Amino acid sequence: MKKIGNGSYVLDNPVAIVNTACIVGPKEKAGPLNKFFDKCLDDEFWGEETWEKAESKLVKETANMAINKAGIAVKDIDLCFAGDLINQCISSSFGLRDLNIPFFGVFGACSTFVESNLLGAMTIDGGFATNVLCTSSSHFCSAEKQFRFPLELGNQRPPSSQWTVTGAGSSILSKNGNGPFIKILTPGKIVDMGIKDANNMGAAMAGAALDTLVTHLNDTGRTPDYYDAIFTGDLGYIGKDILIELAKTKGINISQNYNDCGVLIFDKNKQDTHSGGSGCGCIASVFSGYIYKQLLDKNLKKVLLIATGALMNSLSSQQGESIPGIAHAIAIEI
Amino acid sequence: MKKIGNGSYVLDNPVAIVNTACIVGPKEKAGPLNKFFDKCLDDEFWGEETWEKAESKLVKETANMAINKAGIAVKDIDLCFAGDLINQCISSSFGLRDLNIPFFGVFGACSTFVESNLLGAMTIDGGFATNVLCTSSSHFCSAEKQFRFPLELGNQRPPSSQWTVTGAGSSILSKNGNGPFIKILTPGKIVDMGIKDANNMGAAMAGAALDTLVTHLNDTGRTPDYYDAIFTGDLGYIGKDILIELAKTKGINISQNYNDCGVLIFDKNKQDTHSGGSGCGCIASVFSGYIYKQLLDKNLKKVLLIATGALMNSLSSQQGESIPGIAHAIAIEI
Repeated sequence: MKKIGNGSYVLDNPVAIVNTACIVGPKEKAGPLNKFFDKCLDDEFWGEETWEKAESKLVKETANMAINKAGIAVKDIDLCFAGDLINQCISSSFGLRDLNIPFFGVFGACSTFVESNLLGAMTIDGGFATNVLCTSSSHFCSAEKQFRFPLELGNQRPPSSQWTVTGAGSSILSKNGNGPFIKILTPGKIVDMGIKDANNMGAAMAGAALDTLVTHLNDTGRTPDYYDAIFTGDLGYIGKDILIELAKTKGINISQNYNDCGVLIFDKNKQDTHSGGSGCGCIASVFSGYIYKQLLDKNLKKVLLIATGALMNSLSSQQGESIPGIAHAIAIEI
Repeated sequence: MKKIGNGSYVLDNPVAIVNTACIVGPKEKAGPLNKFFDKCLDDEFWGEETWEKAESKLVKETANMAINKAGIAVKDIDLCFAGDLINQCISSSFGLRDLNIPFFGVFGACSTFVESNLLGAMTIDGGFATNVLCTSSSHFCSAEKQFRFPLELGNQRPPSSQWTVTGAGSSILSKNGNGPFIKILTPGKIVDMGIKDANNMGAAMAGAALDTLVTHLNDTGRTPDYYDAIFTGDLGYIGKDILIELAKTKGINISQNYNDCGVLIFDKNKQDTHSGGSGCGCIASVFSGYIYKQLLDKNLKKVLLIATGALMNSLSSQQGESIPGIAHAIAIEI
């Protein structure tokens, strides 16, 4: 491993993403990416009594599916990194409590999936693990209930709001394997743009995405066209436009090969999802389903994955606080 | 680094804890360890409008104090690991947003401080960082409000309940320095003993502490008396007694050199704190204040620090779930 520039890391022995899995909910099933998901549920409860238990089940089943697809015995998985949006990350702890794998809970809001993969890659490169499980999840109903209003109220949502994805994604990282490979890591710093509108997360997180994008490009000496595709998750439509504009002010043109997982997962016109998808499960399922398969099929060979998170809770917004953002990036190549 | 046994890691180049800092609240000031804390507050607000803002200030000031005491420029700190008990870990993200250091949010409930130090040590040993900041916090008032009842209700607390510490602790880890050194890491697995009483966290977490203790001793081939002291945090009085009993059933006698940070921080008889202290800030401040200074003064030369966390939230208990526990351990020597 070599540290380059201000804070990126080139892995000498790239870490293989040997397999992924994702399970999503009914709204995601009705969206344009449905054929890429491993399993789509027909309802938000999946036979459980509560949305929170359904989300734990999502985590559990997705993680087990990824482990099975990778063909690696559970006992050969050295470490697990996981997190989610629910208070105290219970979807992860309840979902993974039966696995008996050393467990690190992580929280980076919607950036959690890439934070997990980034830390997982560090532990493999550092010699601490041969195989690592990374997983994260979100659930529309449990998130709305916790962060906004009871769903039963049928509250109107502003156009800038995003729709939390019901879904979980898991990846199995390994020292061994044929790729795709995580080759460069760029961990993010907390960036607070002073945005206070909790219904406009894209705007709040765009500054963090820019900071990590600029750091990554400066550190590597690359221009955006080095990558076949750059994905953020989850800035949504508004945040995506802001990032393109902000990047332009830095002389960086990402308009040709950039998209956002929150934009990709829903059909804005048909699905009434306003500014697009969000939640830890959004980039987790879009990466594990769509992007990973594009890499396997060689439709994409070089991808920069930048996950963004809004590091607030509902109380901090009630107390008048602005919304700090963060963005963690990993560069993946086949 | 060498992996030993079932999941411990011996660091070839031990990671130095070059300095620590801690700031605590008025109840902790009135306790038996007050002379070891760097700063004790006279009230729970510290000039802020809300308890949550006061907790963010605790994190911010403690982290800055640790950085200053270590004499390392902020720009030379490569990574930061931090977490706390408040929903979505906002004490950490708001407290550290001005630092401009790549940031990893972690959540292990009351095990967060050692989880941070363990991951920080991995990144240094793995070559990703020269200097790392680790910090975690809790606040009695913000935690009671969030996890239990409004303080204004004056609810009676059962004897098994623990008193969340108002405090934050920070450590600066480094590749360079004269120690004390983190020499062995034993990350924890999730262990669910089926305990459902959210007012008896010690019982819920004791099984996880046992699992990590047994793993550590088996992996290293050591007996408890290898260490001058073994500390858990925060099992409290009840959990401490349970751990001693459970260890006995495994043929392990820790009754001679074992104590718990939740037991140490308050005077049970005078302070009405029932089963003792708890919260991410408990082991963080007791280690950063008391234990670290014992190591510097050579009163203790070999310490095993096992931090325990209850990976639940108030909703999971309302939904009838049991409480999964976790315990992460680091062995520290001068």
